[in-house]
This record gives sequence, C-alpha cells and structure tokens, in this order.
Amino acid sequence: MKLEHIGIAVKSIDKRLAVWQGVLGFSLLYVKEVPEQKVKVAVLDCHGIHIELLEAMDEQSAVRSFIDKRGEGVHHLCFKVDDIEHALAMMKHEKVKLIDETARTGASGKKIAFIHPKNLGGVLIELTE
Amino acid sequence: MKLEHIGIAVKSIDKRLAVWQGVLGFSLLYVKEVPEQKVKVAVLDCHGIHIELLEAMDEQSAVRSFIDKRGEGVHHLCFKVDDIEHALAMMKHEKVKLIDETARTGASGKKIAFIHPKNLGGVLIELTE
Repeated sequence: MKLEHIGIAVKSIDKRLAVWQGVLGFSLLYVKEVPEQKVKVAVLDCHGIHIELLEAMDEQSAVRSFIDKRGEGVHHLCFKVDDIEHALAMMKHEKVKLIDETARTGASGKKIAFIHPKNLGGVLIELTE
Repeated sequence: MKLEHIGIAVKSIDKRLAVWQGVLGFSLLYVKEVPEQKVKVAVLDCHGIHIELLEAMDEQSAVRSFIDKRGEGVHHLCFKVDDIEHALAMMKHEKVKLIDETARTGASGKKIAFIHPKNLGGVLIELTE
C-alpha cells in the first residue's frame, strides 16, 4: 500500500489555495470538478504524493456534511494497491467495515473503493489500483 | 516540503494496530512513549512515509482533547523542510497563524514547529528539519 493522495475538506479552495500553494509552496497541478461526487478538487503535488483540496459543489456533497460535522480538515487518505479486489476480499474476511464491498470506477477512470473509518481509528481510507 | 509522517489520534494503539499492521499490512517500526507530550506512539512504515498512531498517556494530553472534540482521526501532517527558521519567518510574514513562533527540539532531537490549523483548512501541520 503506497500513499497516493491526502484529501482535505475545505470551505473554499480559492481561500485555502492561497496558503497551500502560495505560502507552503506546493505546485498546483490542476483544478477539476467531479459532478458525480458533487465536489471541486484542487490537486497539488508533494514529491509525487497529491494533496487534494476538496470543496463541496452543493449541499448534498459528502464534503459538505463532513465539514458540518467536524469542520475543515483531512477528509481521507488514498492508498494505491496492486489488486483492489484482493485487498477488499481480505478486509472483508478480517471483518473490516467497508463502504464499497466491490471496487467501482472513480472519476479518473481508475478502480477505487472506500473503507469505513470505524475500524481504522476514524480515518476514511480510499483504495485505488 | 516533503511529507515525513501522518499522525493519527487513536483511543487504543493495541486495538488500531491490529488493523493498520495486521490487515492493511504496514510494517511496525517501533513503539515509543513521549512523556513530555503525554503520548504513546506506534510508528508504521509506508514506503518511507511514517504513519504514527498516537495514544494519549493521560487526560492532559493534546491527543485526548483532540479525540474528545473531534473523535479519532488524522491529528496532523508533518512535512520536512530544509530550513525551519526560514519557513517560520516566511509564514509569519504571510500572516499564517503559528503555534510555535520559533522552532523547538522535538522528542527525536530534531527541530520542530507546529503551524496552527486556522489558515490551513483545519489541518494541523508540523514542520521538521
């Protein structure tokens, strides 16, 4: 499992980008909208690991409800695995609570699945292949 | 700025290690106690980036108050910089709120400083040299 990106829920990408890019000095790779997840994403590079600033596009976005409950902050960690179906099967066998029982196709076209934070010390984990 | 570690506040290292080490498969490097921060730390390796599970050693620990307020989850991100005093001076100049105005010596003997989450989208950032 290799760290692929860190997703950070923010109220305003414009406001936070001024600090993450302008002050901390991370390079902005691109900004994209992912309508199926109702989220706008600014992707920054940190030596090959991406830092994704996530802004809700509407009230129904999971990012909005995260911020309403916990405030802005780290929303999820995404790890790359060689075989996502195998990883999910193993977690299921170990009774780790899954959000996605089988992998689905993410916005970038890659297979992804989310693991419930319950067994992971409150950390929402995304797997990608 | 290079990602050095991800600190995760957990109620019980023993309980969470069973999943992070046993199921997710990260190698446990060591477990240490840091009495001056009132925290016990289990350090896992993720291809050179450390995942630190942080357990409060008593009621006064910052990790305990984090969990009381927000529940278990990602507590801070630590980035390595070449010159920590220069980084702090630049942030101060840009009016980023700092927890440590000057660097101090961390438990590992390295210079460290914490940046307040206020300007960073709720993310507590540790700098190390």
